Amino acid sequence: MDLDFKKSDGLITAVIQDHQSGRVLMVGYMNEDAFRLTVERGYAIFWSRSRQRLWLKGESSGHKLIVKSIQTDCDQDAVLVRVEAIGPGVCHEGYESCFFRTLEAGQWSVTEARTYNPKEVYDK
Amino acid sequence: MDLDFKKSDGLITAVIQDHQSGRVLMVGYMNEDAFRLTVERGYAIFWSRSRQRLWLKGESSGHKLIVKSIQTDCDQDAVLVRVEAIGPGVCHEGYESCFFRTLEAGQWSVTEARTYNPKEVYDK
Repeated sequence: MDLDFKKSDGLITAVIQDHQSGRVLMVGYMNEDAFRLTVERGYAIFWSRSRQRLWLKGESSGHKLIVKSIQTDCDQDAVLVRVEAIGPGVCHEGYESCFFRTLEAGQWSVTEARTYNPKEVYDK
Repeated sequence: MDLDFKKSDGLITAVIQDHQSGRVLMVGYMNEDAFRLTVERGYAIFWSRSRQRLWLKGESSGHKLIVKSIQTDCDQDAVLVRVEAIGPGVCHEGYESCFFRTLEAGQWSVTEARTYNPKEVYDK
């Protein structure tokens, strides 16, 4: 059984979940190469849609994602990757998770504190 | 701050997570109408890419998803919807979660038992 890369222009959706807390940390996209490399190397590797290239998560920040398990869904066009996240946060904006905004009374509010200063990590 | 529906042909990715157990139950896609209706009605409503129409999850099975919270990610092209799932399972193949297959030694294996018989639900 193979993954279905045809439905979304060669990409599958990858949900990244902390293997211990269960927190959803980010959503990324993988082409066939990114998925194969993720399995082979044991670190999450995505296809960056904005930069149009393979992207080892953490390549600049050091905040890599160590793969603990990979599951796929019924129609095989998404994967759930449980990880151990290295470092204080997955989000490039300085948060533990990219999902740091919550819908409250029709407005998106930042509902948690930063876990690190992104300027100290990315502007070296 | 609005969601970014432009990046993927008018769709955002919606990760559905059980609000109590933290289990990721499914991944769906929402257009602007589906997202607005999800917020207004309090049940998860998707854009079905295969049927090209709005899809109230549970409209035929009764297995609706009651929205408990909605979060968005840093680039606003994905939402994390925490839900209370009505019924024995979210997956139309009879499982609690659509992510019932795990990669083991290079093969996808079904790694859990069905929670209901889909024929009894969908072939009425």
